[in-house]
Amino acid sequence: MSDIGRAGRCVVLLSGGLDSATTLAIAIEKGYEAHTLSFDYGQRHRIELNRAEKISAFFNAASHKIVTVDLKSFGGSALTDDIAVPKADHGSDVAEGIPITYVPARNTVFLSLALGFAETLHTGDIFIGVNALDYSGYPDCRPEYINAYQKMANLATKESVEGRVKVTIHTPLINMTKKEIVEAGALLSTPFELTLSCYDPGPEGAPCGQCDSCRLRFKGFEEAGIKDPAIEPR
Amino acid sequence: MSDIGRAGRCVVLLSGGLDSATTLAIAIEKGYEAHTLSFDYGQRHRIELNRAEKISAFFNAASHKIVTVDLKSFGGSALTDDIAVPKADHGSDVAEGIPITYVPARNTVFLSLALGFAETLHTGDIFIGVNALDYSGYPDCRPEYINAYQKMANLATKESVEGRVKVTIHTPLINMTKKEIVEAGALLSTPFELTLSCYDPGPEGAPCGQCDSCRLRFKGFEEAGIKDPAIEPR
Repeated sequence: MSDIGRAGRCVVLLSGGLDSATTLAIAIEKGYEAHTLSFDYGQRHRIELNRAEKISAFFNAASHKIVTVDLKSFGGSALTDDIAVPKADHGSDVAEGIPITYVPARNTVFLSLALGFAETLHTGDIFIGVNALDYSGYPDCRPEYINAYQKMANLATKESVEGRVKVTIHTPLINMTKKEIVEAGALLSTPFELTLSCYDPGPEGAPCGQCDSCRLRFKGFEEAGIKDPAIEPR
Repeated sequence: MSDIGRAGRCVVLLSGGLDSATTLAIAIEKGYEAHTLSFDYGQRHRIELNRAEKISAFFNAASHKIVTVDLKSFGGSALTDDIAVPKADHGSDVAEGIPITYVPARNTVFLSLALGFAETLHTGDIFIGVNALDYSGYPDCRPEYINAYQKMANLATKESVEGRVKVTIHTPLINMTKKEIVEAGALLSTPFELTLSCYDPGPEGAPCGQCDSCRLRFKGFEEAGIKDPAIEPR
């Protein structure tokens, strides 16, 4: 008999990438009944929503919701605007500083929507696949940010203020290298072939191989000694 | 010569109600170049978006943006669902506890979108018309929540982390009674006739007169000794 749900319900933010898929695998392994949440936020590569749907189905998530939030109307990011995604032709170093692919306040907006969704599920457990090592350029991937978010969230909602739930922002990947994430995902049978990491994929989701995200992923699989099924023939 | 903008830019959350309109008047009085932000969040009474547009135009806001965010897909509130808005037939007491008109994590979601918008404007000044006295039932209207939000926000964005902006959540109404809000709004020539407070208005915005929000507004105008032009013949 399955013991899925013994840890209660949780919301998992699922972009359709390697990190969020592995985070979902971890949440389920921990015994949560996982409700996945994806966003149609005006991203250039909407194929990731389709991947998120498939990954949710693969893991038998209790529900998968796609919420529309129009971040594109603000502009200011290569991930939503017509600004070119930066690429490197050679070398594997990832550019320093906060990249142009940063979307203003994205994790804050996504966590806030997860917080509202979690409250309707009467839970405070929220999983997000942020990572402080490989994405040190994103301020909203750092532990001090997550801690401050969690404090705020426990003052924000009806159920937390009434003491019925405690909001916990779970970040199982936050201190992992990409190699460790690939290893953790592999251990939990994460369907890597369904995940999409590329910032600028082809229409069917073929990775460009040159953006920061592709290069980090390549390096992670290489260091873990695992073939990436998303770019290898199956 | 106008000195609008001497205090820099700001984002003002504008619902189209009495409180947010007065907040906008205060931001402009303080010398900010005000960029107003409203949300199409699946609310039942979308006429408030039209009022927000008119109020922005009245005050010559530098810009007015309506951002779509689908809170309705979560459910859980009388303001977005088909749950009846509670009404009282007589008396002026407002129900105690957290009301059914509470929308899960609404201010957290709205502030987070304002934070992203503010960053694209290179400012950290955000105005929100929350009020801790009349709406003590809403956890996300309390000073301790706002303080925690501000702390989190200063760790969340590229420009705040790089020290280029300081995020400040301005809540000029937070400790005012409704009477004081009406008085402050009147002093600054707020177009009360354009504001809509009712949770369950008629198609043209006629207030029901019986929901909590109508009753608070009525009491505020009565105590201030000012006629409410929104319900009086003009």
